[in-house]
Amino acid sequence: MRAVFKFDVLKQHSHSSARLGVVTTPHGTIETPAFMPVGTQATVKALSPEDLVDCGSQIILGNTYHLYLRPGHEIIKNLGGLHRFMNWDKPILTDSGGFQVFSLNRLAKVTEEGVKFKSHIDGSTHAFSPEHAIKVQQALGADIIMTFDEPMPYPAEKSAVKISLNLSTRWAKRCKAVHKGESQALFGIVQGGMFKDLRSQSAEQINEIDFPGYAIGGLSVGEDIEMMYEMAEYTAPLLPANKPRYLMGVGTPKDLLACSGMGIDMFDCVMPTRNARNGSLFTSQGKLNIKNNRYQTDGSPPDPACDCYTCQNYSRAYLRHLFIANEIFALRLNTLHNIAFYQNWMRKIRRAIQDDQPFDPNWINPSLEESSAS
Amino acid sequence: MRAVFKFDVLKQHSHSSARLGVVTTPHGTIETPAFMPVGTQATVKALSPEDLVDCGSQIILGNTYHLYLRPGHEIIKNLGGLHRFMNWDKPILTDSGGFQVFSLNRLAKVTEEGVKFKSHIDGSTHAFSPEHAIKVQQALGADIIMTFDEPMPYPAEKSAVKISLNLSTRWAKRCKAVHKGESQALFGIVQGGMFKDLRSQSAEQINEIDFPGYAIGGLSVGEDIEMMYEMAEYTAPLLPANKPRYLMGVGTPKDLLACSGMGIDMFDCVMPTRNARNGSLFTSQGKLNIKNNRYQTDGSPPDPACDCYTCQNYSRAYLRHLFIANEIFALRLNTLHNIAFYQNWMRKIRRAIQDDQPFDPNWINPSLEESSAS
Repeated sequence: MRAVFKFDVLKQHSHSSARLGVVTTPHGTIETPAFMPVGTQATVKALSPEDLVDCGSQIILGNTYHLYLRPGHEIIKNLGGLHRFMNWDKPILTDSGGFQVFSLNRLAKVTEEGVKFKSHIDGSTHAFSPEHAIKVQQALGADIIMTFDEPMPYPAEKSAVKISLNLSTRWAKRCKAVHKGESQALFGIVQGGMFKDLRSQSAEQINEIDFPGYAIGGLSVGEDIEMMYEMAEYTAPLLPANKPRYLMGVGTPKDLLACSGMGIDMFDCVMPTRNARNGSLFTSQGKLNIKNNRYQTDGSPPDPACDCYTCQNYSRAYLRHLFIANEIFALRLNTLHNIAFYQNWMRKIRRAIQDDQPFDPNWINPSLEESSAS
Repeated sequence: MRAVFKFDVLKQHSHSSARLGVVTTPHGTIETPAFMPVGTQATVKALSPEDLVDCGSQIILGNTYHLYLRPGHEIIKNLGGLHRFMNWDKPILTDSGGFQVFSLNRLAKVTEEGVKFKSHIDGSTHAFSPEHAIKVQQALGADIIMTFDEPMPYPAEKSAVKISLNLSTRWAKRCKAVHKGESQALFGIVQGGMFKDLRSQSAEQINEIDFPGYAIGGLSVGEDIEMMYEMAEYTAPLLPANKPRYLMGVGTPKDLLACSGMGIDMFDCVMPTRNARNGSLFTSQGKLNIKNNRYQTDGSPPDPACDCYTCQNYSRAYLRHLFIANEIFALRLNTLHNIAFYQNWMRKIRRAIQDDQPFDPNWINPSLEESSAS
């Protein structure tokens, strides 16, 4: 029988609220704090599953909204589920689709029942309810699935945020009510915008429903970085210490370090993959724009401190050439490096917790400090 | 000391003029008849060097014209040459740039000295002479390099073809005169358009200069397939039996089979890579357009008879999804399969020569018979 979901905290950092842990799922384990590359359309853009493993990824994220619209969750289910469809046999987390329904559909209509929206692909009309979001995620078959909630835009009136978080709580209960079986772990999501008392209220309500893991939603949506940190730091300890905490959509290497120190265990962000496709590489020496003329004759690897396939085999000059010449291989090499940089970064964080060493501010190169929330 | 260039014929097919051979170069050996994937801009589009080896490629082709313009041959030379630049340590053949100078520059001006042309990238003015084409190819450092010649458009007047082939012969002599050293093998090119007597005349002139290998140029340029076969079949035996014969820019699987039977040893063509990027897959059951609706729910591999990475791990439904969703990974998986199909095809041809079995017409699926020349 396949392993059911569990979370073990192996070590508490004495210098921060960080903890070293292991999430166990039917498709294997995840060392935490963990970074999850985003595989929106059943592929982490430009990488193969083998590439993802090579650069240290233990879990990836899939987007329910996109997969529901194309190719369709029933098609994926009939082909054996998302793991088999995309040839990835390690853990997968799917979001509920809520975030994309709202961010890709400005005219989405919310009722108590759920949301009506138009496809960003062909304009066709669709409806998502909490029950339907669970059904779609069950068809996809991820190891960790998320409750369907209403993300709030930023800035938002406190009264509107309060109404919304209560709706999200009722939806979370409906998700839990229709979710069956131990093969998928359903995580609840705390909302509450930038208001601490609403964060407390949401956390209390969501905790009471009782989930095997909890996410902090509604951050990194346009607020400044100090606000994001303040909210994450306030919210994390409101969640049970023996359950994994997932900060959705965050962030920069600096954000991952800072928020690990607040007791966050899981992260996802399009930043490394999207930056790579724009020619922007994360390195131990700072951000590197591979399009820059200065790299035209530069025979050194993108990051001399990096052990990834890209850095071991290719020069900045070659990567610049491929990028300028619009070559497809450029996107793979850049993405592979950026994901490797992120995964090496998480490894560094985990090692510091393991060794109970303080997180070293010198890890952060000034030019890497730009925030995903800014 | 590195191996110098040589060609050994291992076996003569008794059912055709085909022969089994081995080309030895400083970067390794090539079993012939061989297919060379095209790596125009220092990358075979969408594939890594490891992908190329995995699908059975023993040599690739680079385009001198493109690499001269971008990133520049001197830059590549200073970075250790094309092999090191692109992380490919097996044999490389570079063309002379002549074909692209003419096909990408309708206003290219030809004199006895050489050709003046404008860059297709930025419109800047450049000049190529036979001497310069050799110099650029020496900087790139391929194992096999080509003489600089003037390809003729099709159709062309016999008188114009005759003038042109004589110019190409004078240029071939100039190439040979400036080419030094055994680390690169310089191949001559036979021209002569669609006129047998001119093919004979060109072959005689080029043979007399004495090269370690010979190419047949100026075919697959718009003539019908019967004409291409007739010219290749007529020209091949005009070239020395103990030197490799390379038919430039050809072709379909059917073409490779037919022309191997005429005694051709080497081929290159963009067809498998370009088709892949358009969603067209070569399979043992015929051509497969992965965009087709019928594959939406098809869990079978692209080609059940294929042992490539793509066919072993992914379904038609997945490949269709990736392609429709404009995912980068689609291009890699499709290209990898098409190159594997071509390399398996060449293996089949070589095995038939080895076993002295006739080339089997049933190898050719009717829908694979479309010609590159049509």
